[in-house]
Order: sequence, then C-alpha cells, then structure tokens
Amino acid sequence: MAGLGLALLLLGLVPAGAVWPQPQLVRESPGGGRCRLSPSRFRFGYARSSAVGPGCAVLDQAFRRYQRLLRDAGPRGPGEGPEAAAALPGEDTRPWEPLCAELLVSVATPHCDGFPDMDSVESYKLSTSEDLSLLSSESVWGALRGLETFSQLIWRDEDGTFYLNKTDIVDFPRFAHRGLLLDTSRHYLPVRAILETLDVMAYNKFNVFHWHIVDDPSFPYESAAFPELSQKGAYNPVTHVYTLNDVKLVIEYARLRGIRVISEFDTPGHTHSWGPGGRIRKSRPSCRGWGLAKTTPNWSLSTSRVMGELSLFILYCFSPGSRLLDIISSYGKGYVVWQEVFDNGVKVKPDTIIHVWRENAGPYQQEVARVTKAGYRALLSAPWYLNRISYGQDWQTAYQVEPLEFEGSPEQKELVIGGEACMWGEYVDVTNLTPRLWPRAGAIAERLWSNKTVRGLQDAYRRLANFRCTLLRRGIQAQPLFTGYCDPEYSGF
Amino acid sequence: MAGLGLALLLLGLVPAGAVWPQPQLVRESPGGGRCRLSPSRFRFGYARSSAVGPGCAVLDQAFRRYQRLLRDAGPRGPGEGPEAAAALPGEDTRPWEPLCAELLVSVATPHCDGFPDMDSVESYKLSTSEDLSLLSSESVWGALRGLETFSQLIWRDEDGTFYLNKTDIVDFPRFAHRGLLLDTSRHYLPVRAILETLDVMAYNKFNVFHWHIVDDPSFPYESAAFPELSQKGAYNPVTHVYTLNDVKLVIEYARLRGIRVISEFDTPGHTHSWGPGGRIRKSRPSCRGWGLAKTTPNWSLSTSRVMGELSLFILYCFSPGSRLLDIISSYGKGYVVWQEVFDNGVKVKPDTIIHVWRENAGPYQQEVARVTKAGYRALLSAPWYLNRISYGQDWQTAYQVEPLEFEGSPEQKELVIGGEACMWGEYVDVTNLTPRLWPRAGAIAERLWSNKTVRGLQDAYRRLANFRCTLLRRGIQAQPLFTGYCDPEYSGF
Repeated sequence: MAGLGLALLLLGLVPAGAVWPQPQLVRESPGGGRCRLSPSRFRFGYARSSAVGPGCAVLDQAFRRYQRLLRDAGPRGPGEGPEAAAALPGEDTRPWEPLCAELLVSVATPHCDGFPDMDSVESYKLSTSEDLSLLSSESVWGALRGLETFSQLIWRDEDGTFYLNKTDIVDFPRFAHRGLLLDTSRHYLPVRAILETLDVMAYNKFNVFHWHIVDDPSFPYESAAFPELSQKGAYNPVTHVYTLNDVKLVIEYARLRGIRVISEFDTPGHTHSWGPGGRIRKSRPSCRGWGLAKTTPNWSLSTSRVMGELSLFILYCFSPGSRLLDIISSYGKGYVVWQEVFDNGVKVKPDTIIHVWRENAGPYQQEVARVTKAGYRALLSAPWYLNRISYGQDWQTAYQVEPLEFEGSPEQKELVIGGEACMWGEYVDVTNLTPRLWPRAGAIAERLWSNKTVRGLQDAYRRLANFRCTLLRRGIQAQPLFTGYCDPEYSGF
Repeated sequence: MAGLGLALLLLGLVPAGAVWPQPQLVRESPGGGRCRLSPSRFRFGYARSSAVGPGCAVLDQAFRRYQRLLRDAGPRGPGEGPEAAAALPGEDTRPWEPLCAELLVSVATPHCDGFPDMDSVESYKLSTSEDLSLLSSESVWGALRGLETFSQLIWRDEDGTFYLNKTDIVDFPRFAHRGLLLDTSRHYLPVRAILETLDVMAYNKFNVFHWHIVDDPSFPYESAAFPELSQKGAYNPVTHVYTLNDVKLVIEYARLRGIRVISEFDTPGHTHSWGPGGRIRKSRPSCRGWGLAKTTPNWSLSTSRVMGELSLFILYCFSPGSRLLDIISSYGKGYVVWQEVFDNGVKVKPDTIIHVWRENAGPYQQEVARVTKAGYRALLSAPWYLNRISYGQDWQTAYQVEPLEFEGSPEQKELVIGGEACMWGEYVDVTNLTPRLWPRAGAIAERLWSNKTVRGLQDAYRRLANFRCTLLRRGIQAQPLFTGYCDPEYSGF
C-alpha cells in the first residue's frame, strides 16, 4: 500500500542521514550507540574552552530556541493525538536506556556582538555521545549552524521516546553567499512574515537575506529624511510601511540567526515610486539606460540620504551610472549590481559583485563565465527564480543546478561566491509566501551548502520530505513535495 | 504611481458591478439612491408572503451568517488600523442619510428540510431600497444565492460608512451543475479545511462538492461495515480518517449552503487502498480495463456495503463493469462516470452523466460532442484542473473556456449540464489548498453561473481582484491575482 510504504519511508530514516542540508561529513558510530533525550532535562551550555560564554546574546538566545525546538523533534508518538494528555511526551518511557546529558559549545574566537559578513567562518564540528555532546566552531556563526544540525539529529521511536545516535559530523559551507530574496514592493509583507522567513532560512543554513524593499509598485520604507516617499509611495502609509525600527528589528533578528541583511533600493530603472509621491519621474527609463544624468536631483539626494539612515545596508543598483557608484563608495559600502551594469560596460570597482539573473546572450553559464573572466565575483540567481512556479516537483530543477558548471579556469570558479533564491512578488503576498518558499527554497540551500557530490534526487527527496515534516512540526506552513503525509500535519490551520 | 492607481481602481468600483459571479441582470437606480447600512441594526427577515418562515434552518442560519459578514463588507476606513477603537466602525458617521432598514425574503415553495438536487431552482430577484429590500425566490436555494449577492452589494466610503445602492437584480445560473472536486486520498484534508472550502464555494455560488474521498494512496473513510479499510488503508487510522459523523457533518454543512455532496469511491482502476489493508489487490488493473470479473468478491462486497452506509452518496465509477452499474442502480442512485466508461463502450443507462476530464482522441470539445451526440449528459472538467498550476494569471485560461463551444445541435448543447473545478491532491494539502483554490476557482464559478456574454478579461480582473479582497476580509487565505494590495490584508497570518 502506497500510504504505508511512504510512512515507513519517513519513519525509517537513518537520523543522521536525514539532515538538511546534508553535512559535508557524517559518521554514525558503527556500534550504533544512542542515548535517550529528555527535552526538558537536556541542557545546552558553553564549554570551558570556549572564548565566548554566558552573556553572548547570539548563543544564549540560540540555546533557548533550540531547547524549545527539541520538543518538536521527530514524528509524534501513537498516543499523542490532539487529545493527548498534557504531560510532556517522550519522557521516561525507557528508563533503562542512558540519558543524553548536555551539549557543550566551544567557540574559538571571542566575537559575539558583530554582524556576520562575507568572510564569516561557518564551519563546525559536532560529536554526540551519551554523557556529553560537543560542538566546536571558529565563530558563533558556525556554532549556530551546528546547533541546527544537532536539532535535526534527534528522532523518536514509535512510542514517542526521543533519541540521539552517537554521531560525528564535520561540516562547512561550499559557498560563502547563500541568499534568499523577498520582494516587499509588489506586495507588502508584514514584518512577522519576514521574521518567520528568517527562522526558516536559519533551519536551511541560508546566511543572506536580500530585501528588495522598494521598487516601482510601492515604496514601503518610511524614511526619516524623506517621509513623503512612503506617505505617497506606499500602498497605505499607515499599514503598509516599514519603519526604521521595523528594519532594525529585522536586521537584529537576522543577526541572531547568523544572517546578513542586504537591502536593495533599486535605481534608476525601477524607481517609479520614488520622489515625493512618485510625481517627479513619470516615465520609466530603460533598464539598459544608466547614469545619474537621467535622474532628477531630488532622486539622487534621496538615495544618499536614505543610505545614510540605513548605515547597515549595502546598495544594489539595477543600472547605476558611474557617478552613483562613486557616491555609494563614499559611504564605505561594498556593492552588488545586477548583471546589466556589467553587460552595459559601466566602469565598476574590481571588488564589485555581479548578480547574474537572466540569460542575456545565451545560457546563464555563459554569463557567469564572462563575469568571472573579467575578474569579478559572481552571484547566481538565473535558474533560481522560485516565483516562477510550474506543475510538479519543480524543486528538482533548482536542485540539479551546478553553479560551477561553466567553461572557465579554476581561478574563475573561485570567483563564484554563491547564489540566491529569488521570490519576486508579482503573485506572492502573505497568503501564499510560506508554502511557495518552503521546502522549495531548501533545494537551493542544499546546493549552496553541501558537497558538490550530493546530487542524488532520490536521497534528496527522502531527506527533503522528512525535513518538510520537521518544518510542519515547527509550525511552518510548508507545502508537500508529493502524495503522502506527515505526522503530525500542519496544525496552524 | 502604480500602487495608488490600483488602489483607486479597487476602491472606486461601482458596487453592483463588482458582484462575483456577475448576476444575469443588474440595474442600478438611475437616480443613484442609496442608504446607510448599520451592520448591527440592519435585520434580515421573512416576508409575509413567504412560504417558509422562522424555523427554516437553511434561512435562519443564513441570516445569522450574513449578519456577521456585513461587518466585513467593503474596504476598511482610514481610522481603522489594527489599533482602532473597539467601537463598531461604520456607525452613525452620516446621521443625515437614510438608514437601510431590513431585507425581507420571500420563498415561493414551502420546502426547507430537503437536499438540493440537480433540479433545484436557484433563481432569485433582489430589489434594494432605503426602507425595505426584497429578495424573492422559488426555493430556499435561490434565496441563499440572493443573500450572497446582497452581501456583496454593500460597500464603504472612505470614512468607513457602509452603503447600499438602490439596485434591481434578476439572477439565475447558466448551468445547473457547478462543482468543485477535492481529493482527500493523496493528502488528507482536515474536516475544518473542507468546511471552509464549502463556505467559499457558497460565496462563489458553486452548488456541488465532489468529494474524491478515497483512492490508491489512502483510504481515509472509516467504514462501520469494514473498519479494516481505514485501519490499514488510512495514512494514520486515528488522525487521518473521516468518521461517519464527519461525513454527515460535511453533508449537512453543505446542505445549509445549498451545496450537494457527491462522494466518489473510485473503482476499480483506483482501488489500491481497498480490501482489508490493501493486501488483496496488489496489481493495478489498467484504467481502461473494467468489469467485476477483474475484482475480488471481497471488493464488490465492500462497495455495496459502503454504499449502504452512505445512503446520501452518489457513486462515481472510474471504469466499472455493467454488473457493478446494475448493483449501483439497485440502490436507487443515479450515477456519474468518468469518460473512460463511455470511451470503452460500457453499456450504461440513458440517464448516466459522463464526466469529461481528458483529451482522449482530440481536444475535449470533441469528447463533449461525442458524449452529447450519443445522448448522454456531459460534465466538463478537462480544462479546469486547478491543481495544474502555471506561472502568471492562469485563472484567465480557465475563465476563457466556453463549455458550449463544440460542434453539435442545440439539443446536444442542452445536454451539457455544467462542469467542475478539480483540485487533485498530489501536490496539495492543508498547507496550500486555500491559496491555490481561491480566487482561481472563482473563474470557473463565474463561467458556470453568469451569462455567456460575460467574458471581458479586464472587467473580470477588476471584479475578481475586488472579490479576493472580500475573501480576505472574511478570513479566507486567498492569493493575489497580481501586484497590488487589499485593505485590510489577510489577517490570519
């Protein structure tokens, strides 16, 4: 029977093999050792050797989050229907088995309060065993990745007992930049939806939130310097805006999960909603055009002032002129540009990152080859436009992309720093964002994190379907990959 | 500015023109008369001339539902952000304008307790004015349709005041059978999701819920005669089943909204989960094969017993043999068959309805022509598989279908009794059902209800986008048609 078959498939996973994205190296103890885990008694703590300790907000808060998530680990036991007793499930059903005691975290570098950046080291080692599990990393960001992996190692047997197998993991990301783009101009997304997305990004080990915050359709950013921009440019200046505090909240929430926020103020191809009420610039210049000469003084002033407010932001430019790029540089920020800037031959600094999003004069592989041959770093999004849905298991198409499969030297391949899953907003708002994103974006997360050799579709299906059930248990409205079920199903309905 | 433009578009609708699906005849008073409507003081009641009165559950309960829905009418006023005062909005802001008093309903036939059927008369007349609005209909089912239309006529001005324009409407459905199929075998859907779907079906004037309750992947129906079917065939025999009481609840909930339930027990092509635990029949016979000879005795026994339990059900047959159809007839039920039965030349009774779902030997129009030429009634679903999503505004493709656009005599056209929107469950469960269904299924609802001449895409976009905002106000997680916003947005997140 198909149903039971899939059920066994989902329940019968080798736990360590089910982590998403797949760690670089996983070795389960050949002896098959394991311990029982009590979600309420298990504790997270700092190892003595750790350079950071209590008071480090990034880890203190992560411990609390993962303590809560432990209770949602593994499928529900048979006795835990909706009417199950209030007693915590999974406790003491097998008192004769050893109890997992704690996970100690040891971080080598003492930095805790900064922001993750392109050079952050996210590698970690995780070793679980009965009395003590140890997670060691260079940075707090690596520790966050390891905590997520740890949470996914816990599984439950049919009686609802939680277990942790003796396992050794060595893990690190394949690409440094693993991004997700949300578009809050075509449809406004409430801050809560953005925060939830950041949660799930962390479950997937994404590390860059690319916030396409304003664009032609609406200007939801409430600028202190130019309040008219949102008063006249937002869909609704009261309910459909992000205040500076909202933006700060998003940035801090992301930081605590090891995620950088790149906020994009598209210019000047996409600036219909700019200027007081969008009244100044009526016609939309060609996206291939560029140069400040084509924009109004007001616009360039707005740009630089808004940038001043948002000192943490990096500016994306759709097709900026050289003068604009100079202004941006004067703020001491790096910048990323959409590929048109490169295609059009605008002079940019050597450290510019070129974001490849379309097939211009041939497949995107040729564009990546051209960009890297010219010595620029490249970010890949062309095959990862998740808004472009199609019928069936379209996550597989995204999964099968190999970012380094283009003609070029080893040096060129080094210049591909990662990629981004893009969820443009023409057809997406808070009503369908989460099911469209998850678990589909997970395919890209694994491609960017895991080893190049992790490519098998059957194995990926098995782990991604399992991971999707984990997301449901964590309260995320993630859609199914195919016929089947989770236990429990999504309960937020 | 695009945003503001769309906003004006949505707010500036002529209210009567915005009803979905479009009524057959709408005439707004040339004088432009209107009254103010107070959601708490307005009342629904029975006219003296009505053959049904208080105690008629169908209308008593409908009055209460629409009384509640009045408060969600029209866009939110500017003073009503999330933190607005608790006082009911829209009251007494224009005391000098006349107040709409009540809507009286007059039903000609005294039947209240029955079930809607294929011959139910759903026509109604609605006349609204200051002191008294009148809704008259042949049956209670027509009154339900009129109440829905009435609820969509109410609009709000910028201050949040509710209004009702003086309007006359004469309305009736173009097709008698306007169905929606849900599939609870490939993924289980909680009863709550089915009930919510019935609510939204009623908002769209759908009148048939085609419940594809069991199929190969799982058997969620908990049969009293054959409890093993679900004990071994359901994904989970405790959490993923429909009890007889669940089924009765769905049927009654549907009845109160003027919706018939057709429950389908697919046979024998799709019966992997049948028989105790699906153990009896291991191989799947060709869907083109038929005949009881190919099925086990146990199976045919189950079929007839399950049918006995579900005396309200009509049986769909995927490819039944003549003997099976005889058994079904002996229960005194009509039946609908998928087109294979007709294509394969199985002898069926003249009153059989053939459900056209695929393009066999040519486009579906040819199949409809063949079916009706043979004198059978036809139901159309081939172009309305809503599960087959594609990028962009794919509701337009469904909307542009013209069911009678095939070569055939006027008598043949008479035999097309309607159609069904189908949402098969391979990729759909409770996490994405509602946004995938709504407002896309609305395109089919209007095609089946409204006049053949109602075809303009621009006008349909305008009204459907407005209707989608109405759905959000009613708490339905309906996805956007395109860039823009609603006021308020979906608040269930």
